[in-house]
Amino acid sequence: MELEFLGTGSGQPSKFRNVASVALRLLDERNAVWLFDVGEATQHQILKTTIRPRKIEKIFISHLHGDHIFGLPGLLSSRSFQGADRNEPLTIYGPKGLRSFISAALRVSETHLSYPIHYVEIEEGVIFEDETFKVIAAPLRHRMESWGFRVEEKPHQGELLINKVKADKIPAGPVYGQLKAGETVQLADGRVVNGKDYLGPEQPGRVITIIFDTMPSDSELALAKGADVLVHEATYGMSKEESKMARAHGHSTSRDAANLAVKAGAKKLVLTHISARYIGPLLQRFIGDVHHVFGQVYVARDLDVIDVPFEKEQHD
Amino acid sequence: MELEFLGTGSGQPSKFRNVASVALRLLDERNAVWLFDVGEATQHQILKTTIRPRKIEKIFISHLHGDHIFGLPGLLSSRSFQGADRNEPLTIYGPKGLRSFISAALRVSETHLSYPIHYVEIEEGVIFEDETFKVIAAPLRHRMESWGFRVEEKPHQGELLINKVKADKIPAGPVYGQLKAGETVQLADGRVVNGKDYLGPEQPGRVITIIFDTMPSDSELALAKGADVLVHEATYGMSKEESKMARAHGHSTSRDAANLAVKAGAKKLVLTHISARYIGPLLQRFIGDVHHVFGQVYVARDLDVIDVPFEKEQHD
Ligand SMILES: [Zn+2]
Ligand SMILES: [Zn+2]
Repeated sequence: MELEFLGTGSGQPSKFRNVASVALRLLDERNAVWLFDVGEATQHQILKTTIRPRKIEKIFISHLHGDHIFGLPGLLSSRSFQGADRNEPLTIYGPKGLRSFISAALRVSETHLSYPIHYVEIEEGVIFEDETFKVIAAPLRHRMESWGFRVEEKPHQGELLINKVKADKIPAGPVYGQLKAGETVQLADGRVVNGKDYLGPEQPGRVITIIFDTMPSDSELALAKGADVLVHEATYGMSKEESKMARAHGHSTSRDAANLAVKAGAKKLVLTHISARYIGPLLQRFIGDVHHVFGQVYVARDLDVIDVPFEKEQHD
Repeated sequence: MELEFLGTGSGQPSKFRNVASVALRLLDERNAVWLFDVGEATQHQILKTTIRPRKIEKIFISHLHGDHIFGLPGLLSSRSFQGADRNEPLTIYGPKGLRSFISAALRVSETHLSYPIHYVEIEEGVIFEDETFKVIAAPLRHRMESWGFRVEEKPHQGELLINKVKADKIPAGPVYGQLKAGETVQLADGRVVNGKDYLGPEQPGRVITIIFDTMPSDSELALAKGADVLVHEATYGMSKEESKMARAHGHSTSRDAANLAVKAGAKKLVLTHISARYIGPLLQRFIGDVHHVFGQVYVARDLDVIDVPFEKEQHD
């Protein structure tokens, strides 16, 4: 599981930061990639990565500002070209109005996709759940309807307690695999053993929280609680003047994001949606300032990949 | 007057060619830039040039396929950001349906532009004319309505025939400027002279023809007649198999474009809208083949600038 930052800028593209998009790479977990927001030229950024458009299984759109959605028509078209012989469906989660924008763009350009799109209009709560993942959405506070996302990996089954297996003199062999899977097995000596008795405790899955455009909002805490990685917009730095600008435009400062990380007990904070004004010394000041508030912070750059490893707890 | 190629690819962006857009730089002529087609990430390409979005005075759209228009919403938005204190209007010439696509994109993203857009729905004939330029549109043959453009610079006034002026013993001074401007002047010795009698013949202005997606079409000849530069799509090379593909997709081969250049007496042919398949040796073969048909050909690359100088004829 990795986060790949396709665009870390705000408002409009600049030489160093494209507009908003971040990919959650779930290739090991489900052979899929999820995108959060698709600013213009997201498909161009993807060309610089190893992501294959047809692996994109889900797209989550936080809100309908142009710097978060204008890359959709092109990306959807190219995904069709590149996987013409395949028909992997795509699910798009977004605010009301997204579907009609996409439809209008595809209709006017006479684009006929080779795959079906399922649209899900976001409402508060669980918007997706299967055996391995759950995604929760909560409303934020922006100049228009805007949503934050919490991606929860389901708990990992406990490890096989190998010392206990040995203590009970269960002979090595394929039976270990069955026990690992929690199955009940009859041994060669006639004993019936339950795999569940030989597994350590379940281990919690990873949590990724992605919060784009918002002013500080009470709803953020539940989304970010205990996250392994909290990705948060920080359009502005933390001076008084910058704070004012942030509020005037419905945005957060780096301090807002860091405060949330502290309060939520997030393990790591990654800032994105950075105004193009922060380059050179101004960017370094931006970074330095926020480090004082929360040490485990990283200011993303375009094409950065942040690994989110599953760390097995050792049991015996 | 220069042509700057912002995207020279076809269908979808590739690592080496962005989707269609070409800028006609008229900075000396009218302190303006005109764009022809605006594929996705045209504004990103512009960031790599010296073009300022607010200098973009007119946009001409050949047809509504996504690779020719998906960059419009972002470009129009950014033009607004960057010129927030200015309100230079913009005129967009395009097929029916373009206006509603742009409106839908701006409406859903709650984008309020700082400048007015004038829309002109293209019809055959002269679509723009003022003292310095005329633009003529003609229908092409593609999978949907598609238009080609001929940009004619108005004739340049003749040069002052300085030897004739001297032969008639007109004394040097500000009067030369008046004669140059074609005015009638009373000289100090009482003679009345007409500037027009001292000017060489008018010199024809430059002609640029821009023909995007089309199969060979009778309407092309009039557009391209005697052009200083004929910009033409050549999605495919000239083998029999490539020709078949070109026709199947409503496109031209490099041979189609070169044949037109020969027939029309174009001075120079610049090929664009090149399929991403042509890289390395395949591109070199593509270039080599077309050179055999028309020597004055150039296969554009992204960000190429082609100068189109006005060459004064000398008279005496
Ligand atoms: Zn926004
Ligand atoms: Zn086309």
